[in-house]
Amino acid sequence: MKELLSKLKFNEDGLIPAIIQDATNGQVLMMAWMNAASIDRTIATGKTHFWSRSRGTFWMKGETSGHTQQVKRISLDCDGDTLLIQVGQEGAACHEGYRSCFFRSYEGGKIVETEKRIVDPKKIYKK
Amino acid sequence: MKELLSKLKFNEDGLIPAIIQDATNGQVLMMAWMNAASIDRTIATGKTHFWSRSRGTFWMKGETSGHTQQVKRISLDCDGDTLLIQVGQEGAACHEGYRSCFFRSYEGGKIVETEKRIVDPKKIYKK
Repeated sequence: MKELLSKLKFNEDGLIPAIIQDATNGQVLMMAWMNAASIDRTIATGKTHFWSRSRGTFWMKGETSGHTQQVKRISLDCDGDTLLIQVGQEGAACHEGYRSCFFRSYEGGKIVETEKRIVDPKKIYKK
Repeated sequence: MKELLSKLKFNEDGLIPAIIQDATNGQVLMMAWMNAASIDRTIATGKTHFWSRSRGTFWMKGETSGHTQQVKRISLDCDGDTLLIQVGQEGAACHEGYRSCFFRSYEGGKIVETEKRIVDPKKIYKK
């Protein structure tokens, strides 16, 4: 853990972006922010934990939805300012019910949906 | 272009992170920052252009090395605050001569190199 942290450059808010990739098929699922403590929890538990900039709290991916991410590999880039985490994704990574948050593309001057929704978010995030 | 920009949320510096992925095999190659003008140039030329936060200038990926990135698909995430760009990568994406900037992983408490260097950076970035 210390060796990893010593190689990382956190931004002025103590955060680093983490790209989350499906370990089975290479699909990029999402990008979220981690601080040193959430990296620690991610390594300790084997499940991704992030830092919410808007809420100012930790969150474990899937803590509400059950759609957790089992960590398979943690990589860092040449500059040490971005993480790439390969995971086993349970269900949908996107809170809108898509497997990946990147379910829209820009094609021929328009935004088009390139993926099917796999779960109904209303059924996951009950109040 | 307008439709894409209207869906994006730039940060307080007018920037958005762009994840660059190899369109052929799904390998995540790098992460860099774009502003609205560099997205415009990327779409207009079909080659990735970024904004250097440290130098305060545009740069086309490969302008020095020749290792350009041909844009295949531009996707955006659910929150509109991250781009995923799939590319045809010429040579090495990493300025250190690796195909991907993510050539190191954290395994068993240590940082290990998981990729071979494919080009000698000294031969590319001549002074």
